[in-house]
Amino acid sequence: MAGRVAIIMGSDSDYPVMKGAEEVLEQFGIEVIVDIVSAHRTPDKMFEFARTAHTQGIEVIIAGAGGAAHLPGMVASITPLPVIGVPVNITPLQGLDALFSIVQMPKGVPVATVAINNAANAGLLAVRILAVKYPELLDEMIAYQQELKELVRQKAIRLKEIRGK
Amino acid sequence: MAGRVAIIMGSDSDYPVMKGAEEVLEQFGIEVIVDIVSAHRTPDKMFEFARTAHTQGIEVIIAGAGGAAHLPGMVASITPLPVIGVPVNITPLQGLDALFSIVQMPKGVPVATVAINNAANAGLLAVRILAVKYPELLDEMIAYQQELKELVRQKAIRLKEIRGK
Amino acid sequence: MAGRVAIIMGSDSDYPVMKGAEEVLEQFGIEVIVDIVSAHRTPDKMFEFARTAHTQGIEVIIAGAGGAAHLPGMVASITPLPVIGVPVNITPLQGLDALFSIVQMPKGVPVATVAINNAANAGLLAVRILAVKYPELLDEMIAYQQELKELVRQKAIRLKEIRGK
Amino acid sequence: MAGRVAIIMGSDSDYPVMKGAEEVLEQFGIEVIVDIVSAHRTPDKMFEFARTAHTQGIEVIIAGAGGAAHLPGMVASITPLPVIGVPVNITPLQGLDALFSIVQMPKGVPVATVAINNAANAGLLAVRILAVKYPELLDEMIAYQQELKELVRQKAIRLKEIRGK
Amino acid sequence: MAGRVAIIMGSDSDYPVMKGAEEVLEQFGIEVIVDIVSAHRTPDKMFEFARTAHTQGIEVIIAGAGGAAHLPGMVASITPLPVIGVPVNITPLQGLDALFSIVQMPKGVPVATVAINNAANAGLLAVRILAVKYPELLDEMIAYQQELKELVRQKAIRLKEIRGK
Amino acid sequence: MAGRVAIIMGSDSDYPVMKGAEEVLEQFGIEVIVDIVSAHRTPDKMFEFARTAHTQGIEVIIAGAGGAAHLPGMVASITPLPVIGVPVNITPLQGLDALFSIVQMPKGVPVATVAINNAANAGLLAVRILAVKYPELLDEMIAYQQELKELVRQKAIRLKEIRGK
Amino acid sequence: MAGRVAIIMGSDSDYPVMKGAEEVLEQFGIEVIVDIVSAHRTPDKMFEFARTAHTQGIEVIIAGAGGAAHLPGMVASITPLPVIGVPVNITPLQGLDALFSIVQMPKGVPVATVAINNAANAGLLAVRILAVKYPELLDEMIAYQQELKELVRQKAIRLKEIRGK
Amino acid sequence: MAGRVAIIMGSDSDYPVMKGAEEVLEQFGIEVIVDIVSAHRTPDKMFEFARTAHTQGIEVIIAGAGGAAHLPGMVASITPLPVIGVPVNITPLQGLDALFSIVQMPKGVPVATVAINNAANAGLLAVRILAVKYPELLDEMIAYQQELKELVRQKAIRLKEIRGK
Repeated sequence: MAGRVAIIMGSDSDYPVMKGAEEVLEQFGIEVIVDIVSAHRTPDKMFEFARTAHTQGIEVIIAGAGGAAHLPGMVASITPLPVIGVPVNITPLQGLDALFSIVQMPKGVPVATVAINNAANAGLLAVRILAVKYPELLDEMIAYQQELKELVRQKAIRLKEIRGK
Repeated sequence: MAGRVAIIMGSDSDYPVMKGAEEVLEQFGIEVIVDIVSAHRTPDKMFEFARTAHTQGIEVIIAGAGGAAHLPGMVASITPLPVIGVPVNITPLQGLDALFSIVQMPKGVPVATVAINNAANAGLLAVRILAVKYPELLDEMIAYQQELKELVRQKAIRLKEIRGK
Repeated sequence: MAGRVAIIMGSDSDYPVMKGAEEVLEQFGIEVIVDIVSAHRTPDKMFEFARTAHTQGIEVIIAGAGGAAHLPGMVASITPLPVIGVPVNITPLQGLDALFSIVQMPKGVPVATVAINNAANAGLLAVRILAVKYPELLDEMIAYQQELKELVRQKAIRLKEIRGK
Repeated sequence: MAGRVAIIMGSDSDYPVMKGAEEVLEQFGIEVIVDIVSAHRTPDKMFEFARTAHTQGIEVIIAGAGGAAHLPGMVASITPLPVIGVPVNITPLQGLDALFSIVQMPKGVPVATVAINNAANAGLLAVRILAVKYPELLDEMIAYQQELKELVRQKAIRLKEIRGK
Repeated sequence: MAGRVAIIMGSDSDYPVMKGAEEVLEQFGIEVIVDIVSAHRTPDKMFEFARTAHTQGIEVIIAGAGGAAHLPGMVASITPLPVIGVPVNITPLQGLDALFSIVQMPKGVPVATVAINNAANAGLLAVRILAVKYPELLDEMIAYQQELKELVRQKAIRLKEIRGK
Repeated sequence: MAGRVAIIMGSDSDYPVMKGAEEVLEQFGIEVIVDIVSAHRTPDKMFEFARTAHTQGIEVIIAGAGGAAHLPGMVASITPLPVIGVPVNITPLQGLDALFSIVQMPKGVPVATVAINNAANAGLLAVRILAVKYPELLDEMIAYQQELKELVRQKAIRLKEIRGK
Repeated sequence: MAGRVAIIMGSDSDYPVMKGAEEVLEQFGIEVIVDIVSAHRTPDKMFEFARTAHTQGIEVIIAGAGGAAHLPGMVASITPLPVIGVPVNITPLQGLDALFSIVQMPKGVPVATVAINNAANAGLLAVRILAVKYPELLDEMIAYQQELKELVRQKAIRLKEIRGK
Repeated sequence: MAGRVAIIMGSDSDYPVMKGAEEVLEQFGIEVIVDIVSAHRTPDKMFEFARTAHTQGIEVIIAGAGGAAHLPGMVASITPLPVIGVPVNITPLQGLDALFSIVQMPKGVPVATVAINNAANAGLLAVRILAVKYPELLDEMIAYQQELKELVRQKAIRLKEIRGK
C-alpha cells in the first residue's frame, strides 16, 4: 500500500461530505486516517495533531470545515505537509464564507483549496500529490482519467436513449 | 486607571488601521498592550498569548486580521476573555473575506466583530465592555456620546457655511 | 445570580432563532429579559428601552434583526451598554443584508456582531463580557470550553463507530 | 414656489454626493432644507426631526447614508411622509452595505431607494412625487424628459465628430 | 376615494407577490388598476401604457419584475409619474439581479425601489406619495403606523405566553 | 464588404469602451454604424431604431450599457436580429449590476452577453455570427485565431528575454 | 430545413436544463445534434468536436456547463463558429460560478452568454443567428415575437379572472 | 537539485504576479520552467504541454490565469500531475471570477487553488508537495516556517519602536 493521508474535520456532521475523500483514497489503496479535530473547540488537539503528523508517516492532510473555516489554514501553519482544504456548506452564506476563509491565506502558509463540498476532489488531489513519490499511483491516476472518459461515453449513449433518437 | 486591553495583529502593516483602537482606548485612560501575533506565522506565540492573557490582567482582546483572518477566532477559541475582531481590508476582495472569516464563527466560540477597518469601534466596544465592571467608564461613555452629538451640531453649522445659506 | 442581559428582537417570528441566546444565558445562571422591540414599528418603545436599559440593571443587550436590520445599531447609538447584534436570515439575500446592516456601523457606535442566525454565540459573548466583572463566570466559561473539547472527543468516538473501523 | 423637501445626511462628508439632489430641486424651483442629522450620533435630533417634519410643511424627505445606513429607514419609521434613501459609497464594500441597509426594509416601513451615490435621482424622484400634487411640476418633468432627449441628440453629434465620420 | 395607482407586472406568475401591493392599496381605499405589461414581451403595450398613464388619472405606478428586470426603469423613462419598482425573486440569483436591474438607474430616470418581493411596501410607499396630495391619507398613514405599534405590543404579549414567563 | 453591424450605447462616455468593438469590426472589413441610443433618455429613438434595424440592412446589433443596463435587452425585445450586450463598468458595483441587467433576460428574449468592458469580444462575436452567412469571414476568423497563437508565441519569447534565461 | 446546431453538455445530468434549447430549435425546424462532451473528463473528444464542427455543417454551437464551466470557452477557443454558453446551476454558489466562468472570457475568444439555466434563450439566440443567413427564419422570429405578445394578452385576461374584477 | 516545477500563464502580463512563485521555488533550489501557455489563445500548445509534462520530468504544475480562468482546470483535466491554480486579478470583478473559475472544478478533476494573486503560496505549496518525495525539502520547509516566526518577532520589535513605547 502506497501513501498515508489524514482526513480531519471539525464535527461528525461534516462526515457525510468528507467521506467523499475517504472513498476515493480507499479506491486507490491509500491508507486513510479519519478524525474529528476542531480548530475552535479542540485547539490543543489540533495543535498536537498538526505538530506531529509528519512524524507519524502522514504525507498529506485533508481538512474540511464550514463557516469561518480555520481548520485547514491553522493546520497548514503548523505542519510542513501539504494541506488540502474542503469548504463545507453549512451556513446561509452557501459555503462562500468557508471558501474565503480557506483559500485567502496570507503569503507563507498555503492551503490547496478545492470546490465547496467537493471532498472527492480533495481525495483525488491527494492521490496526485502522492503520485509524485509513488510511480504506481501515477499510472493509476492515468487509468482513472481514462475511466472518466469511458463514463462520459456511456452517458452519451444513455442520453441518446433518453432522447429516443 | 481602569481596565487593560490587548491589541494584537498579524503584521506591522496592520498597525495603521489598528492604531485607531489604541487611540480610543488611551483617550479613555485604559491601559493598552500592543503586539504582533500571527495565527499563521507564529501559531505557538498565538497559543501562548491566548492561553495566558486572562492570567495577566488582560480583560478584553482586540484582534485585527485580513484575508483568511483566523487570528480573532483562534484566540477566542483558547481564551475565556471577550475577543473583538477587526476585519482588515488587505486583499482584492475588499475585506469581505476577512469579514466572513471573523464573523461566521461556529456555535461555541463567539467573536465580537466590528466593521471592516473600523478599529476605532473595536476600541469603543472594549470601553463599553469594561464599563460593565468600571462604573466611571460608563459615565465617560455617556459623555463621549454627548460629544458625538456636539460634533454633528458643529458639522451642521459648517455645512450651512459651505452652502452659504 | 450574576449579570442581567436583555434580549430584544423585532418580531416574535425571530424567537425560534433568538431563544438560542436565552438558553445559553440561563445555562450560565444569568438573568434574562426578553422583549419584542422593533426599531421600525415601535421606534418610541425602542428609544425608551435603549435610553433606560443601563438604569435598570441591564448590563448587556442582545438584539436580533433581519433584512435592513437597524435594531442593534440604533439601540447601540442610544445606550452606553455593549450591544451584541445577531443577523437573522429572513430574506432571499440569505442574511447578508442583515449582516451588512448590523456590522458596518460608522465610527463612534460599535455593535458586537456574531454569525448569521447564531444567537447561541451572542449568549456566549454576553457571558464573556459579564465575566470581566463576575470572576465566577470566568471559571464557568473555562469549564464550558473544556466541555466543548469533551464533546468533540465523544463525536470522534461516534465517528469511529459509524465508520466501523 | 411649489413643494418643500428636506435633504438630510449623517455627516458633512456626505454633502459632495448629496448636493446632487439639492441642485436638481433648486433647478425645479422647489424649496430645499438641508441639515446634518445622524441616526447614530444624534438619535434624539433624528427622532425630533422625523416626528415633526410633516407638521412643518415638509412634503418629501431625502436621506443619504453610507455603511450600515440606518438614517432613511429610521426616519421612515417615524414620519408618515415619503422618504427617499440614497446609499452613499463610503466603505470598502462599495456601497453594497448601504444599499442593502436602505432597501431591504421590512413590511410596514418603505424607503424609496435610488442608485448608489445617485442623489440627483433622489431629487428627480422628489419632483415626480410633488408633481402628483402640483400640476405645474408634472409639465416641468415632461419638459425635463424632453431635454434629456435633446442632450442625447447632441452627444450623438459630438460622437460623430470624435469619430470623424 | 382618493388616488389611483396602477400595478403592472411582466407575468401572471408575479401576481402572488404583487397582490401584496394591491391589498395594501385597497385597505387604504385607493383605486387600483392591475395589468400584465411586459417590457420584453410586449414592448409596444408597455410604451403605450407608460406614455398615457398620467393622462388617464393614474398618479403612481408600481411595477414588479424579476431577473433582468427592465419594466420599472423603462416605464419610468417614458412616464413623468413616480414609479415604484419591486424586485421579484424568480432566478437562482435570489432577486439580486432584479434588485440591481431596478435600483441602479442612471442619472435622469429614478425608480423608487423597495425590498425584494416586498410588494406590500410598494403599496405603502404609494400611499405616502398620494398623501402628499390627499391630506386624509396622511392621517390614515399615521393611524396605520399606530396600528403597527399595537401589533408589536400584542406580539410581545404572545411571546411572553410562549415562553411561559 | 461583407456584413453590417450597428454599435449603440447610452452615452458618449461609453465610447472609449465601445470603440473596442468598432476597431475589431473594421479590421475584418465589416461596415459599422455607431450611434448614441439611450433606453432611458431616448426611449422613442431606441424603439424606432430597434423596430427598423433589420429593414435597413443591419444584421447584428451590439449594445453597450452600464448600471441598470436596459438597452441591450430592450432592443432585443423589439428587433428580431441577434443582439450582443456589453456590460460597461460605470458604477461602484464594478459592472456586476450591468452584467446581471444584461445577461439575466427572461425566456423569450435572449441577449448574447460578453465580459464586462470587453467590447472587442462583442466585435469578434459579431464576426463569427456574420461568418455563418459570409464564408470569407469564416476563413478570416480562422486566420485571426492563428494570429492569436503567433502573438502568444512572441510573448513567450519576450518573457524569456525579461527573465534573462 | 434551415440551419444546423450542436448542443453539447458535460453530463447527462445537464440534459433536463439543456433540452430547453433543443425544444426551441425543433420548434423552428432547425436540425439539432445533441451530445455529451466534457471539457474536463473528455478533453480529447472536446478538442476533436470543436476542431471539426464547422467542417460538418454545424453553424452554431450551444454549450451548457455548471461550476467551473470551461466547456463553452474552450470550445470557442478552438472553433471559428459562434458559441452560445448556458451557465447551469449545479453548485451551492447558485450558478454565479458558472456565469463568471462562461461570460468573463479574455479578449480574443467570445462566448455569447445567456441567463443561468435559460437554455431556451440559447435556442432562440441560435435562431436569430441563423436568421442572418436564412431569411425565412427572420420571418419566423418576428412571428414568434408576435406570439409572445399574444401570450401576455391571454395572461392579462387570466389575471383578471383570478382577481375576479 | 530536487524537484522540477513548471509555471505557466496565459500572458506575459501575468508575469509580475506569477514570478512570486518562481522566486520561492528558486529560493528552495527547485528547477523551474516558465512558459506562456494560453488555454484560449493556444489550445493546441496547452494540450501538448499538459499531455507530455509528466513524461518530461515535471512533477508539479503551477498555472495562473484571470477572468474566466480555464488554464489550471484544463491542464488538470489532461495531466495526471498535481496542478496548482493562481487566480489573477485582471478584471473589474476583483479576481472573484478567476477564483470561481479555478476552484469550482467538478468531481474528477481537482485544482489546488491558492489565494487571489498569491503566487508565492503556489510556490510554497509546490515545495510541500515535492517534500513528500524529497526529505531534504521537508527539513527546508520546517526551517522556512521557523524563519516566518523570526520575521514576526522582528516586526514586533519594529512596531514597539514605531509606537515609541
